[in-house]
Amino acid sequence: MLRRIAASLIVLTSLVTGFASADTLPLPPSLVDGASDAGATLLVESEAREAYFPLAANFLTQKNQAFCGVASMVMILNALRVPAPEVPEYLPYRTFTQDNVLNASTEAIVPQATILQKGMTLDQLGAVFAVKPVTVTVRHAADSSLEDFRREARDALGTKDRFVVVNYLRKVMGQQTGGHFSPLAAYDAETDRFLILDVARYKYPPVWVTAADLFAAMDTPDSDNAGLTRGYLLVSAKTI
Amino acid sequence: MLRRIAASLIVLTSLVTGFASADTLPLPPSLVDGASDAGATLLVESEAREAYFPLAANFLTQKNQAFCGVASMVMILNALRVPAPEVPEYLPYRTFTQDNVLNASTEAIVPQATILQKGMTLDQLGAVFAVKPVTVTVRHAADSSLEDFRREARDALGTKDRFVVVNYLRKVMGQQTGGHFSPLAAYDAETDRFLILDVARYKYPPVWVTAADLFAAMDTPDSDNAGLTRGYLLVSAKTI
Ligand SMILES: [Ca+2]
Ligand SMILES: [Ca+2]
Ligand SMILES: [Ca+2]
Ligand SMILES: [Ca+2]
Repeated sequence: MLRRIAASLIVLTSLVTGFASADTLPLPPSLVDGASDAGATLLVESEAREAYFPLAANFLTQKNQAFCGVASMVMILNALRVPAPEVPEYLPYRTFTQDNVLNASTEAIVPQATILQKGMTLDQLGAVFAVKPVTVTVRHAADSSLEDFRREARDALGTKDRFVVVNYLRKVMGQQTGGHFSPLAAYDAETDRFLILDVARYKYPPVWVTAADLFAAMDTPDSDNAGLTRGYLLVSAKTI
Repeated sequence: MLRRIAASLIVLTSLVTGFASADTLPLPPSLVDGASDAGATLLVESEAREAYFPLAANFLTQKNQAFCGVASMVMILNALRVPAPEVPEYLPYRTFTQDNVLNASTEAIVPQATILQKGMTLDQLGAVFAVKPVTVTVRHAADSSLEDFRREARDALGTKDRFVVVNYLRKVMGQQTGGHFSPLAAYDAETDRFLILDVARYKYPPVWVTAADLFAAMDTPDSDNAGLTRGYLLVSAKTI
């Protein structure tokens, strides 16, 4: 009896204080939760997943709501094992973090203050990546196609040391709501779905999205980029 | 010609400045790198991996070299979807972080200043977990056995909303070198290996370790804990 009263009080208190669980937002039916049993099965049965394990070992949360591009870049630079700067708390170990990946060179491309205000465009993130010892290709959706994207992304995700970052409008794939960056990690052929390791981990779990829905979300004009479409970046090790 | 000179200069500079890659430390032959092809195969073929996907979606790096227990706790509380405190940078979204998981209640168990100096013992981390709305069982290795540990950990890892944190002496499993905490994520029966999602991500990748090696590393006296052995914690949702 006392336990039932206690349980009811806890529920009541949650309702009154609005104390929310650590749950992320609900997904539309078109997206498969990467952390669910269905998502696990998709990964286990995926055809291209070279990118998944190095990225999963470096999966992190964007440190503020404007740093999704920065967070994506940190994951990929660490996954590529690019020579990293120091981290005071980790000496003598080195790794990229969202606190050390921006520096004087990136500041000249796009200042951190600007990123904090409005995030980055596809071209800005591509240019910031290009400052690092990697090879980066920028693809605006308008210059690509669903077929080209699917082929390029699938090939990259199935090859060691090649990665893909997507820039898309959440609303078009049924999420809330604005422009966003995150890395892709795998591709399943039967369902034609890509796995996005969404760096807004406080907001959404990783999701498996169909190639068509993802391309449609990338093929959106970015008013912060003079109306050019969003799209994707192909990033790989620097070849000297 | 010029490119070869440039390449040589880069190598020379790296040697002179000691500029290291973002590589983690080498592993002994007894450990399988979780981010390698062999590690990927083990996960895909593992018999108990309910814990893996919720933990992978919340995998993070300890924020300083003393916070491995804190980092492990954050991963598990988020994986369990325990009601979370606010995060100023993420409002209105809530999640556990290494900055908000310690509070007045945990301070009374073990002050943050103490954790920063010397980390936590198995009993201290168990007691801090117990302050949260979860069920926690503390197992010192001396009170368990390889067979009991293997059975308990395998069962937990194969069941939704049940997790395992291990406390072990790195040196005994061929790593450098001291006491450490991290969550387990999966178990493979044929190789009798457990996957440790090592939260010192700047130092080591995730590793698949044999049950025997892991138990031996847990079955070590902790001088910070009056010589009691290290061991493991079983954590699950609170049942009212
Ligand atoms: Ca498939
Ligand atoms: Ca490979
Ligand atoms: Ca197996
Ligand atoms: Ca399940």
